[in-house]
Amino acid sequence: MAADHGPAAAPLRCGPVPRVGSRPGPFPACAGPCPRRAPPLTRVCLSGPRPGLCGAGGREPGAAPRRAIGHGRVAVELDSSAGVAVMKMENLPVNSLSLDFLTEFLISLEKLENDRGCRGVILTSGAPKIFSAGLDIMEMYGKSTEHYAEFWKAVQEMWLRLYQSNMVTIAAINGSSPAGGCLMAMCCDYRIMAENPKYSIGLNETQLGIVAPFWFKDTMVNTIGNRATERSLELGLLYSPPEAHKIGLVDQLVPEEKIQSTAAAVMSQWLAIPDHARQITKSMMRKPTVDRLLAHRESDIQNFVSFISKDAIQKSLHMYMEMLKQRRG
Amino acid sequence: MAADHGPAAAPLRCGPVPRVGSRPGPFPACAGPCPRRAPPLTRVCLSGPRPGLCGAGGREPGAAPRRAIGHGRVAVELDSSAGVAVMKMENLPVNSLSLDFLTEFLISLEKLENDRGCRGVILTSGAPKIFSAGLDIMEMYGKSTEHYAEFWKAVQEMWLRLYQSNMVTIAAINGSSPAGGCLMAMCCDYRIMAENPKYSIGLNETQLGIVAPFWFKDTMVNTIGNRATERSLELGLLYSPPEAHKIGLVDQLVPEEKIQSTAAAVMSQWLAIPDHARQITKSMMRKPTVDRLLAHRESDIQNFVSFISKDAIQKSLHMYMEMLKQRRG
Amino acid sequence: MAADHGPAAAPLRCGPVPRVGSRPGPFPACAGPCPRRAPPLTRVCLSGPRPGLCGAGGREPGAAPRRAIGHGRVAVELDSSAGVAVMKMENLPVNSLSLDFLTEFLISLEKLENDRGCRGVILTSGAPKIFSAGLDIMEMYGKSTEHYAEFWKAVQEMWLRLYQSNMVTIAAINGSSPAGGCLMAMCCDYRIMAENPKYSIGLNETQLGIVAPFWFKDTMVNTIGNRATERSLELGLLYSPPEAHKIGLVDQLVPEEKIQSTAAAVMSQWLAIPDHARQITKSMMRKPTVDRLLAHRESDIQNFVSFISKDAIQKSLHMYMEMLKQRRG
Repeated sequence: MAADHGPAAAPLRCGPVPRVGSRPGPFPACAGPCPRRAPPLTRVCLSGPRPGLCGAGGREPGAAPRRAIGHGRVAVELDSSAGVAVMKMENLPVNSLSLDFLTEFLISLEKLENDRGCRGVILTSGAPKIFSAGLDIMEMYGKSTEHYAEFWKAVQEMWLRLYQSNMVTIAAINGSSPAGGCLMAMCCDYRIMAENPKYSIGLNETQLGIVAPFWFKDTMVNTIGNRATERSLELGLLYSPPEAHKIGLVDQLVPEEKIQSTAAAVMSQWLAIPDHARQITKSMMRKPTVDRLLAHRESDIQNFVSFISKDAIQKSLHMYMEMLKQRRG
Repeated sequence: MAADHGPAAAPLRCGPVPRVGSRPGPFPACAGPCPRRAPPLTRVCLSGPRPGLCGAGGREPGAAPRRAIGHGRVAVELDSSAGVAVMKMENLPVNSLSLDFLTEFLISLEKLENDRGCRGVILTSGAPKIFSAGLDIMEMYGKSTEHYAEFWKAVQEMWLRLYQSNMVTIAAINGSSPAGGCLMAMCCDYRIMAENPKYSIGLNETQLGIVAPFWFKDTMVNTIGNRATERSLELGLLYSPPEAHKIGLVDQLVPEEKIQSTAAAVMSQWLAIPDHARQITKSMMRKPTVDRLLAHRESDIQNFVSFISKDAIQKSLHMYMEMLKQRRG
Repeated sequence: MAADHGPAAAPLRCGPVPRVGSRPGPFPACAGPCPRRAPPLTRVCLSGPRPGLCGAGGREPGAAPRRAIGHGRVAVELDSSAGVAVMKMENLPVNSLSLDFLTEFLISLEKLENDRGCRGVILTSGAPKIFSAGLDIMEMYGKSTEHYAEFWKAVQEMWLRLYQSNMVTIAAINGSSPAGGCLMAMCCDYRIMAENPKYSIGLNETQLGIVAPFWFKDTMVNTIGNRATERSLELGLLYSPPEAHKIGLVDQLVPEEKIQSTAAAVMSQWLAIPDHARQITKSMMRKPTVDRLLAHRESDIQNFVSFISKDAIQKSLHMYMEMLKQRRG
């Protein structure tokens, strides 16, 4: 877009995106959430009774009663002057995505989403050497079908909320990130990974004899394309940081000690874009993928429950857990 | 395809595509438009009263009266011996896509499309340092809703005609090409860009607080894939020539003084392919994307009109224009 | 997936996929086809009367009577200890895809598909310097419309069976692979090509004045993406091995003498993944593309028959065959 009577806007370049310093606001974007002043660096530790995840804090009809959360598995620090929160996953030892963790994660995310003082979130790990190990196997073994359904619904909810977040979401991947951990990273707008050769990332479900559901697959196709996804999923590949960078599974590699500062710098580039325009664009890009899960949400839950309830699968999970115990021992 | 009794056709290689010198025509392609003799290098300057854009020159029922075109904003040179036209955009200073310009562009394109002596078009700029600055902001400020609708329909029409052209279309991008300028380039079959570090290209709408419509997005996804488009659109990125080449937004970089000769050489490679087969293939590739706009054409116009008519947007555009004036002053 | 009480599975890396040695089976994958003991290295030569291709060996109602297969055009060697078969195309001189060849190919593939002792197939050529030259032009010239329909149905069937095979399929591309030969390679799970600069691969139909059907196109888009496919198909490009590798049309290049050993090594990586999980994943990736042909299978046959029956096309094919004869002479 340019006026007929003068030169176009000075070319803005890729790489570091310059802040639009001379932007002649108020742009319509500011009709949406805009940063406001608030006390800087509030540390939020969620520990109260757990509200429902959907709607205005109520419990969904027919939902199973929910356990209280005993301690903080997600540490949130909001820098109100920047409008940026850091969500640090602290479900030790490996940030397994348990039902409790997912619930706390969703509450934290929801609070930030509704906080007009927060425009961006950096998702990272407080556990050593691991971003997230993915879905918690304990939630899938020896439980009731109701429990499996509740768990899977929470996994879906995590994806739906994170993938569609109105905030800028940046994954600071400071450790290995298999399976569900990789999914969380792929949900973000931008992925920065520590270039530690011991770390890996990928959807490795087939290595365990299970299958990533279609919306995991869709998310990966959207990120690295069809062919790389096909090979990746069929072989259950876990990529080293350079490999992940090469195929576009992560956007940037940095030395481990610079990951948080890099995330903050990248965030400020993203926040230079008017929120409203960015949010509409993000929705335009991701909505078809989201709609596909929403259209099949119940059958996806039923598929998971019937699959995971099979004797053969339960037996496999049991043996897998025994193997993990031995390794640990 | 190969005969059972002999070796296959000699392997033809990528890179410079060799002319199929020994092609045993007449191939069915020649049922379609084939080059014919005509006076070489005709310079077409459109200056008569403006006919309607759709159908056989008539005005659409209910369309607003149209202004006459005062002077040539698109210079067309047709080399009949080669069957190739050069369309040079000359809407100084920055080839803004005004309603008048789009109209003249469409008439010129239509004439070439219907000229059996023209099989290919090289789209380039006669303005210094800029290919096209994109949509003319003056058409979107302080006008009637009827005007906005007419303007947007012309933008759609430009995309529909250029993206589906039966001719081989090559963009010789000899200057910066933001927003609508980038769209025009992406509509072509092949993009050659001058490797001048001062030039940039991209869909930078979000930088201005506005949003590229879904068919701009679709065109970019078809060109550079989903993930690169997502990042590109959300950040409103403008790429330097090497960056644009790396992500596939342009196909080839050349020194500025060689851009026209390179475009001519590439064109001759494309014209070595039988028109009919190439046209069917092009339609097969692009039709689903075109059909998506055709199915939502009216609602897309309504969306644009209601968005651009908002007070907040009008105010933003006003301030943007003031900024451009100051820069110019 | 990880247990809450211990470290995640040791990171498995990309590149050579490690065998999951300590996998605590039986995984559900083993509910599907698992390798069993059988006599090693059986050489299968098909020479009996030809059964129907569809269903349990019966002939489809209304199908034309089928000719007997005189001699083996597909040599199959099954290494039962590895669970891997090598299918070597031996339809000399150039492995043209004739109706007889396609029929024999389909029967061989079907036998392996139903053999629980076979989990993977390596597809390669016994002809010198050529993988497959693609569809046999003789099947498309001077025959009845019934013959054209039968031939095209066999081409469709080849694609449907190979693209959806439950076995791991690896193409060891030891020669040029234009048109239908390229399609066969793209149907496989992995493509290894000999890095002989005389070889090329691609869908070059437009070079011959014909058009690759939509499912050829879909298969290529799934392999190399939309833009590379668009350019590739419109220009009928044949790529040298390095070019093919660069755009992802083949996955790996090796010296010609190492192609079979490399294929075997890659196969063992793929077979380390539980069959069941890999098969479900493959189906999830490819089913939408397959469904598109199934939904339009009859009209696709009609399109082919009416196109190939045209006088202009028949004349072109005649001249093309004359040219091939002269080259050979």
